[in-house]
Amino acid sequence: MTIATVEVKRDVSEKSKFPLNQWYVAALSSELKDQPIGRTLLEKPIVLFRMGDGTVAALEDRCCHRALPLSSGMVESSGLRCGYHGLLFNQDGKCIEIPGQEKIPSKAKVAAYHVQERDGLIWIWFGQDQHVAPACDAPSYFVHSDPQYVYGGGVYYYNAPYQLIHDNLLDLSHLAYVHPHTIGGNAKIHMNAEMKVESEGDNVRVIRYMPNSEPPSTYTAAYTFHGNVDRWQEIDFRVTHQLIWTGAVDHNTADLNDPERGGFHMRGFHGITPETETTCHYFWTMATNPTNNVEEIKNKVVEQTQLTFDEDKEIIEKQYQNMLRFGPKPVIDIHVDVGANRARRIIDRLCEKKEMIQSESNQDKVLETETV
Amino acid sequence: MTIATVEVKRDVSEKSKFPLNQWYVAALSSELKDQPIGRTLLEKPIVLFRMGDGTVAALEDRCCHRALPLSSGMVESSGLRCGYHGLLFNQDGKCIEIPGQEKIPSKAKVAAYHVQERDGLIWIWFGQDQHVAPACDAPSYFVHSDPQYVYGGGVYYYNAPYQLIHDNLLDLSHLAYVHPHTIGGNAKIHMNAEMKVESEGDNVRVIRYMPNSEPPSTYTAAYTFHGNVDRWQEIDFRVTHQLIWTGAVDHNTADLNDPERGGFHMRGFHGITPETETTCHYFWTMATNPTNNVEEIKNKVVEQTQLTFDEDKEIIEKQYQNMLRFGPKPVIDIHVDVGANRARRIIDRLCEKKEMIQSESNQDKVLETETV
Amino acid sequence: MTIATVEVKRDVSEKSKFPLNQWYVAALSSELKDQPIGRTLLEKPIVLFRMGDGTVAALEDRCCHRALPLSSGMVESSGLRCGYHGLLFNQDGKCIEIPGQEKIPSKAKVAAYHVQERDGLIWIWFGQDQHVAPACDAPSYFVHSDPQYVYGGGVYYYNAPYQLIHDNLLDLSHLAYVHPHTIGGNAKIHMNAEMKVESEGDNVRVIRYMPNSEPPSTYTAAYTFHGNVDRWQEIDFRVTHQLIWTGAVDHNTADLNDPERGGFHMRGFHGITPETETTCHYFWTMATNPTNNVEEIKNKVVEQTQLTFDEDKEIIEKQYQNMLRFGPKPVIDIHVDVGANRARRIIDRLCEKKEMIQSESNQDKVLETETV
Repeated sequence: MTIATVEVKRDVSEKSKFPLNQWYVAALSSELKDQPIGRTLLEKPIVLFRMGDGTVAALEDRCCHRALPLSSGMVESSGLRCGYHGLLFNQDGKCIEIPGQEKIPSKAKVAAYHVQERDGLIWIWFGQDQHVAPACDAPSYFVHSDPQYVYGGGVYYYNAPYQLIHDNLLDLSHLAYVHPHTIGGNAKIHMNAEMKVESEGDNVRVIRYMPNSEPPSTYTAAYTFHGNVDRWQEIDFRVTHQLIWTGAVDHNTADLNDPERGGFHMRGFHGITPETETTCHYFWTMATNPTNNVEEIKNKVVEQTQLTFDEDKEIIEKQYQNMLRFGPKPVIDIHVDVGANRARRIIDRLCEKKEMIQSESNQDKVLETETV
Repeated sequence: MTIATVEVKRDVSEKSKFPLNQWYVAALSSELKDQPIGRTLLEKPIVLFRMGDGTVAALEDRCCHRALPLSSGMVESSGLRCGYHGLLFNQDGKCIEIPGQEKIPSKAKVAAYHVQERDGLIWIWFGQDQHVAPACDAPSYFVHSDPQYVYGGGVYYYNAPYQLIHDNLLDLSHLAYVHPHTIGGNAKIHMNAEMKVESEGDNVRVIRYMPNSEPPSTYTAAYTFHGNVDRWQEIDFRVTHQLIWTGAVDHNTADLNDPERGGFHMRGFHGITPETETTCHYFWTMATNPTNNVEEIKNKVVEQTQLTFDEDKEIIEKQYQNMLRFGPKPVIDIHVDVGANRARRIIDRLCEKKEMIQSESNQDKVLETETV
Repeated sequence: MTIATVEVKRDVSEKSKFPLNQWYVAALSSELKDQPIGRTLLEKPIVLFRMGDGTVAALEDRCCHRALPLSSGMVESSGLRCGYHGLLFNQDGKCIEIPGQEKIPSKAKVAAYHVQERDGLIWIWFGQDQHVAPACDAPSYFVHSDPQYVYGGGVYYYNAPYQLIHDNLLDLSHLAYVHPHTIGGNAKIHMNAEMKVESEGDNVRVIRYMPNSEPPSTYTAAYTFHGNVDRWQEIDFRVTHQLIWTGAVDHNTADLNDPERGGFHMRGFHGITPETETTCHYFWTMATNPTNNVEEIKNKVVEQTQLTFDEDKEIIEKQYQNMLRFGPKPVIDIHVDVGANRARRIIDRLCEKKEMIQSESNQDKVLETETV
């Protein structure tokens, strides 16, 4: 990964609505087949499609002739054809055919975006200057490619600002109240669990251990425990996405600080991409590590995860509607808000800072550790 | 009932959107069971719930932590628990538990409203100054507690300003055109009926008698008449609600001026509570006095009433949409508008007057009587 | 037809949103039976109804008493009765009865519009000055009255500005991409077809011939061809409507320039009436000339036409939503846009010109001819 300095052209005093110079998730690989997908990302209406060789392309979702969304068009091996009058565009956004007309004017083109497909995820780059190439590759996500894990996932459209989802994921104390029927478990143990919050660069890590607690129903449905369990929740915030590793082992059978610990694992990927300042896309996968009945257990875990995320969506959208209804009004903070508040300060800083630089996710230096 | 002087703090020249220092209906008692109800009243989002002992509480519908509506939470015997992170609020709006945290900050509270439950109705007080206690009790409504009567009811949400419903109820001449299949009857008799309009303080009374008229279908479905009937309509406007007593006796068998007259009675309660300036809640009950087949006749009368009110809702919402479509434009008045216009002047005066005082519903002095 | 000079009273520098001093389609005759129709035309909410003798009347769709739409009322032989309090209005908009009240105030009236019913179409006049009578009769349309033809039709409501439909109809090169399953046919032949564009006054004519082409599925479903066909498309733009004559004969069996040519004919009428600047009504009929199985073939042709127009609606509404999403942004023109662009210039000129005069549809002088 190369870290480059990005040339800043626009007024440095201007505050961005979203962190730029970042890779955001544009789609799950499994979503994009032979039909184009139209999706607005960071306020840009974009069409995603695959060229004949399978590579992903991303163009402005508007034909330069009469403004029909190109996502209403037809995918061909050499590009995407508009569904109104048949203009054909290649992966660079250049019009390469106007039916019935020999000369193609040089203005016949649409904007193209940088995209990369890695480990089952399609990422799109939003830079301060879209003419400058991304200075690093899109993030890898080894879990999707590790044979120990099987996974499934989905996409939610949220009528709520993206930071409310970050808040929700960085604070798993809500499990007892929002998800009592799936991954919740005992409220008091959740709330009283020791929580450690660490930061490194633009990353935040929240760790909570719940030793000797009752396994929640999603866990027992997928794995055989022999009584109480030691649970862990490790949440890694990464500006445009989060990696959440939760799981449990039989009580007192493993060191929770050992990353090679056994037991039941759920590894969640959460890509959170703003559509606008008040709406967003939420791309998720959930991986687990069954040793037998692999397909059945995977389906059970993914299904329970989806039920759980349905509950989050309902809560978060209600929360946002209520914020709109009441208008600006102070809130109080409680003990579980440390991680989420720290992530909010990072996003604030990234939207404000004079020269946005690449997010450097591989730094090891721990800057701040807080135990709550 | 004590009449108190309410201390006025805000700018007395300001015009209120709604009459204040009034009890408004917040809910029918039958609506509020073990789940909270979220409802916006006079532009205030409010949650209603019952404490463990059954008393009704009303709080601002927003958790002070992360703004989720408290109406998405769980009712407990000592209060209402937020459905996101479990904060518990008592009937005064004070947070009495933050899960996993010992100290409860003094700012952890939400606004509470004055409520009273009487005769099957839950009333809420909106004063000019919400910190001042209501100076009178909520209205009683003896019909709901009188063993001679049985009743049922419901709640409508209206996409129309509340005064259009007052207009509609104060002018029952529309029955012939809007409700020909239920309580309508002959158009000419309706329109030509003598109408008397009286005022006392903030109250208006409209009385119409339709002697020797054909009983409408709702009447004959519920009661046995022997030919034509003498019908009465007595409408009492009360700023936040109306009491409408209609009914009929066989022609020439009773004095219509005698309140103890027999025959078939329909006593309607109509609570009309603004949600916003352009939307409202309409709480209604209809009581009747069957002497046999009590349940069957009650159901028939309530069902027919609901059909009738469905028709009103359709008309009034269309009327309002059309008012919006055309924008401000003069209207002409006709003879039936006397009562409604007088009620509008009362509401106007109450919204404007420098020092709002308690509505005094028990005054007996008749100020104006008009025969139309 | 008389051409009159219309007196212009308002500020001549003001630009109109729509061409005025025009007959617009208000309804198909077949739509208007014993119920009134409420419809907003050129931003005027209007109610259409038939008097007892069948003549069509058009009034402002608002009762002057309490603003209910008159289209919610009841048609009577002498006029339209309001559905709220029963005021009755005649075809001139004069209130002729107020139930229960003897005196009718002179202000009790609503605006009336000039309407004419001709050949199965109901036309309404929008003049610069609505007090001046239309200076010509509404257009005739002989196809609806010609016994050789049978026809059916319908009405679409479009969430898109009316000119996008004019664009669509004046450029039939989209058939290959939007309508491949009905009237499309081979894309290359469509796009390479010679196109001739003529103008005369406020009219535009686009003519395209596609000799020796494969008949599309709608054609073969309705008519027996013996191999390839010679197809024609003749499009006549008329400011408020278009007449489109398409069809085909067996290859080399007729002179396409001969209006009396045989074969399979589809004659489309397209009335396009703005509702607002961003929405419109689209009234269409499709006539054909079967010699046997008349009803069956008519139904097939009308049904296929409707499928085709459903596809257009989907495309045009998507196009407009995308125009809104992207905001003002340049477009490029291609060869097929000549006719549509010329029509746009005519509409622009009619909205701008200082003294709007009657559209003169019978002029014969060809002003511009262009072969593309």
